[in-house]
Amino acid sequence: MKLHILGCYAATPRTLTNPTAQVLEIKNHLFLIDCGEGTQVQLRKNKIKFSRITHIFISHLHGDHFFGLPGLISTFRLLGREKELHIYGPEGIKQAITLLLKLGNSYTNYQLIFHELNSSEPELLFEDTKVEVSTLPLDHRVYTNGFLFRELTGERKLNVEATAKYKIDKAYFSSIKQGKDVKLEDGSIISNAELSFDPPPPKKYAYCSDTAFNESLISLVEGVDLLYHESTFLETERHLAKKTKHSTAKQAATIARDANVHQLILGHFSTRYKSIMPFKEEAIQIFSNVELADDGKTFIL
Amino acid sequence: MKLHILGCYAATPRTLTNPTAQVLEIKNHLFLIDCGEGTQVQLRKNKIKFSRITHIFISHLHGDHFFGLPGLISTFRLLGREKELHIYGPEGIKQAITLLLKLGNSYTNYQLIFHELNSSEPELLFEDTKVEVSTLPLDHRVYTNGFLFRELTGERKLNVEATAKYKIDKAYFSSIKQGKDVKLEDGSIISNAELSFDPPPPKKYAYCSDTAFNESLISLVEGVDLLYHESTFLETERHLAKKTKHSTAKQAATIARDANVHQLILGHFSTRYKSIMPFKEEAIQIFSNVELADDGKTFIL
Repeated sequence: MKLHILGCYAATPRTLTNPTAQVLEIKNHLFLIDCGEGTQVQLRKNKIKFSRITHIFISHLHGDHFFGLPGLISTFRLLGREKELHIYGPEGIKQAITLLLKLGNSYTNYQLIFHELNSSEPELLFEDTKVEVSTLPLDHRVYTNGFLFRELTGERKLNVEATAKYKIDKAYFSSIKQGKDVKLEDGSIISNAELSFDPPPPKKYAYCSDTAFNESLISLVEGVDLLYHESTFLETERHLAKKTKHSTAKQAATIARDANVHQLILGHFSTRYKSIMPFKEEAIQIFSNVELADDGKTFIL
Repeated sequence: MKLHILGCYAATPRTLTNPTAQVLEIKNHLFLIDCGEGTQVQLRKNKIKFSRITHIFISHLHGDHFFGLPGLISTFRLLGREKELHIYGPEGIKQAITLLLKLGNSYTNYQLIFHELNSSEPELLFEDTKVEVSTLPLDHRVYTNGFLFRELTGERKLNVEATAKYKIDKAYFSSIKQGKDVKLEDGSIISNAELSFDPPPPKKYAYCSDTAFNESLISLVEGVDLLYHESTFLETERHLAKKTKHSTAKQAATIARDANVHQLILGHFSTRYKSIMPFKEEAIQIFSNVELADDGKTFIL
């Protein structure tokens, strides 16, 4: 699993800072998470292949998470895309995108499939045999969801030495990976535990932006390997965080600590701050395994 | 008069090329012309003061001329703008912008005044004592206007030597600039021609993007000092120009020549071309005073 931070600053795009967008590489998918203005240029800068993006998850309809989407959809069309594109986001996203396409007489040649969200409970949005994506309801000024990306337990790993020792035919390998025992020609049974190893533990990534300090998140992101949590402000601006329904670095770290996550990434920094280092200094008092997002940075799990 | 090219490439924003946007400085106004994705970052890069922009002219509702507008409007709000903002553009622009603001629950604190256009005849959009702006109907795949910016004839210039020679009191200077004669105390009359010079000739700038080759433009841009005309393609791709209702460099130069303009600027280059130099080489065969636009370039009249 690999997380590309395309943009991690709040509010207005600037010369050197981009609004929110991320790409998560997971089990052969490239999921785009939020799409602030300029995301398509950030995708190019980060050498991410446009055609591999088939699912886009939009947390909420504030411009710094969403105003890059119409342009990206248009660019896909200009690049001759044929593959369908799934867009998950708050109710209204379909009306907005289709109005813009209609006004420009620029309907896509490929299929746009909107999945509009309005539930205040966690919902399963996507699943295949290897990964699941569900919502994390957040508390912001407009209807907002974070997203939980969860690998499913994979196949067991073949114990190559053991299968050689028992001279087991390749025809059995698939069933061994699925946890089955093998019955030899002489009638004896070799247990699956002898022939395979446990699969690697499935990984989880939780994306939480934008949100006020929200204790109901704790149980939802319990034990995730990686938590991205917004920290628009420092504690010195806690009053602004409260007023605008954002979080401070300390509050983000509190969620990480109480949910026993493995690692915390802070992001969505207000551009009022000259340096983002104080965010780490503030959070590390509460939770030690903390990193700062930055545009162009990648995190590998 | 000074023209800032913020972006002059067609279709998709890329790492090093921006979609269309320009700022025209004219008689103490900063007019923004088109607003492709990333325009607000280009405004910052070109050190243009956001608060001085009070009129935005949108040629048509294709994304590469328009998808930067919602973000710019939001940024104005975040910067605490109070001054009203006038937006001129095709019918539908108001619905699109207000829907996006509504979905984000992000209505502006300042007044947005939309001037929606649907006429196929030239229309006067703006006038004050020093400048007029009117539409130039273009021929594109959707309803599109170019814009003609015209300085009005200014005040006459005081002939300082002559006013000193006749010992004319300062109280008369304002009426001299307005073309009036002066009657001295002894009853003699000094003619205005002796006391002032003609004002500098008023300048005109015509912006024409996007458009197919369109001979009806010739009379509308007759004799302008500066013509920006799109040239998305070279003659080798003339079939594509025809199909997509764009122009070639040669066609743009033909308009410039037949309209007797002073200078031609080419822009809206397709990103299919590795170099833009061939656009100049093609146009100069038809019209000699031709320059290429480029992102960040300025032209002073």
